[in-house]
Amino acid sequence: MRSSMDLAPGDPAQAEVANPLLVEVTRGPMVESRHRAAFAVADCGGTVVLHGGDIARPVYPRSAIKPLQALALVETGAAEAFELGDAEIALACASHGGEPRHVDTVAAWLSRIGCGPDDLACGAHLPSTQRAMLDLIAGGGHATALHNNCSGKHAGFLTVARHLGHPTAGYIAHEHPVQQRVLGILESMTGQDLGEAPRGIDGCGIPTLGIPLGNIALAMARLALPDDQPEARQAAAARVRRAMAAEPFLVAGTGRFCTKVMEVTGERALVKTGAEGVYCAALTKLGLGVALKVDDGAGRAAEVLMGRLLLHLGVIDDAEAEALARTLSPPVLNRAGRHVGDLRAKPV
Amino acid sequence: MRSSMDLAPGDPAQAEVANPLLVEVTRGPMVESRHRAAFAVADCGGTVVLHGGDIARPVYPRSAIKPLQALALVETGAAEAFELGDAEIALACASHGGEPRHVDTVAAWLSRIGCGPDDLACGAHLPSTQRAMLDLIAGGGHATALHNNCSGKHAGFLTVARHLGHPTAGYIAHEHPVQQRVLGILESMTGQDLGEAPRGIDGCGIPTLGIPLGNIALAMARLALPDDQPEARQAAAARVRRAMAAEPFLVAGTGRFCTKVMEVTGERALVKTGAEGVYCAALTKLGLGVALKVDDGAGRAAEVLMGRLLLHLGVIDDAEAEALARTLSPPVLNRAGRHVGDLRAKPV
Repeated sequence: MRSSMDLAPGDPAQAEVANPLLVEVTRGPMVESRHRAAFAVADCGGTVVLHGGDIARPVYPRSAIKPLQALALVETGAAEAFELGDAEIALACASHGGEPRHVDTVAAWLSRIGCGPDDLACGAHLPSTQRAMLDLIAGGGHATALHNNCSGKHAGFLTVARHLGHPTAGYIAHEHPVQQRVLGILESMTGQDLGEAPRGIDGCGIPTLGIPLGNIALAMARLALPDDQPEARQAAAARVRRAMAAEPFLVAGTGRFCTKVMEVTGERALVKTGAEGVYCAALTKLGLGVALKVDDGAGRAAEVLMGRLLLHLGVIDDAEAEALARTLSPPVLNRAGRHVGDLRAKPV
Repeated sequence: MRSSMDLAPGDPAQAEVANPLLVEVTRGPMVESRHRAAFAVADCGGTVVLHGGDIARPVYPRSAIKPLQALALVETGAAEAFELGDAEIALACASHGGEPRHVDTVAAWLSRIGCGPDDLACGAHLPSTQRAMLDLIAGGGHATALHNNCSGKHAGFLTVARHLGHPTAGYIAHEHPVQQRVLGILESMTGQDLGEAPRGIDGCGIPTLGIPLGNIALAMARLALPDDQPEARQAAAARVRRAMAAEPFLVAGTGRFCTKVMEVTGERALVKTGAEGVYCAALTKLGLGVALKVDDGAGRAAEVLMGRLLLHLGVIDDAEAEALARTLSPPVLNRAGRHVGDLRAKPV
């Protein structure tokens, strides 16, 4: 076919160096879709031991840094003051599926701190777990802020506010003392001055800051191995790690990648998803942190890429990889349940 | 941060030339995610008048070529024999939202040809329109094959089988006379020998063939202006165009890009979405066809890129673009309904 005009060479759309193509989606004999991504693996001294693509470009980490934000709940003493257990701390780290145990535990937690669903500013949405959503609607119910995947994180913010005597109103605002406290933790853990960082508004209303992947990975490495951090931070990190490992269901839910991996790895690999194709991990035994971002925001690609990295780093052994096969390299099924393709990460 | 190892230069993952970055998703001051894509605009003589990226690579067109597949329903005489109207022919072209009018019209159509929902082989899924899904579940219902977004197309296949005296059983198989008929139409319209084309299985179970974007665009140009086609094909193309323009709701549904655009453009621009980031258009007045594929499969990017192309080609005037502003350049809203970012296509 003859072409009389095409995209001008030198067009800015062409000038940017592409991140590596790391995930493919096949259908039959052909690659149907493809995802580019960047990733960084760092140790807690700041060395990037493995990376792909542009790890200097700022990334909104979204929910993938909930475990870092949850440090505030513990190191302020709030968790202890309200006698929170693994369940609550895990929910503070969670992007949960809105299943009954998630919802009921958050509701009970709010009561204990003298709050209720109306104090949550995250907004309402239907449970992300399909079964829970269908059961809710079939039972005549409707979405509330409790079902919001961030409701545990927000219950954590309210708990910090209560404990420190701050007003609960407006707790999602950047200027609110709770968000400022979290900001301080993020600066310290990422080793990055975030005062001028690009700032957007997250799905749940709190600020989200643009941070280079390398620095996010450093923060996760420090969560895994906080030896150079103040003692209160070290204890808080240990508490958060323990809770995530003890309650993988609460961190995500039925059928979810995070949950299935942590059920196998326990504290060895604490993994956390974030919207728009972000994934993070704190690798406790190895003392490493992982942060990745799929350029186009696809969660399906972020999952298989995280799985590939866990395999590459030896965090999951062959037997575990076998047990997790359908999670690490999911089949593409059509509407009739037929296996028509696959998602696969390319070697890193 | 020091890097001790990164992705080896010359790695095959890096060797592929990247398609242009054509859609950005912003959040606050920063681009959060980005989508690469290829597109072709062709006339019915086979000249590509505008393109971006690699238009030679085969693409599974998925549902975007339903209007071409629907030609079989008309040119075999099946549509006339069963007295099908605009509604049925539009549904044969549709990826519908499973709303009551979609479902009821397909159900009634199946009865007229002596079939029922059990004859549909597309599989069941919940309505893709959220309101319809919630109403169905709240009312104690469940997903059936009628709700499947392809049920109209499949009703069309069954109609062709009935009319030509073929068995209805197995109508989705590549070897079935109905699929072979459709294959012949696709070869003729794309100008491509599809015997050796990569073949996958579509979401609804029928074959999907890998076809270069330039050839898909040619097929859409021929749908728009079939002057060089046999008379029966010309008449069938006119019938399909008329039905889509008359029933834009049935081709997609409430809030859908296809529907909103065609409600404004009528037959001037017949647009059709396909899974995994495909979009096609037949531009009747201009005698052009458009085909695009977003590398990573994202529908959100395919929509805004199609919108950008329609603007670029002058298919939508300024007043219409104003009326369609939220469709062509959608805001990103957070869970509380706050406007936190935007989707925008870069100039082509």
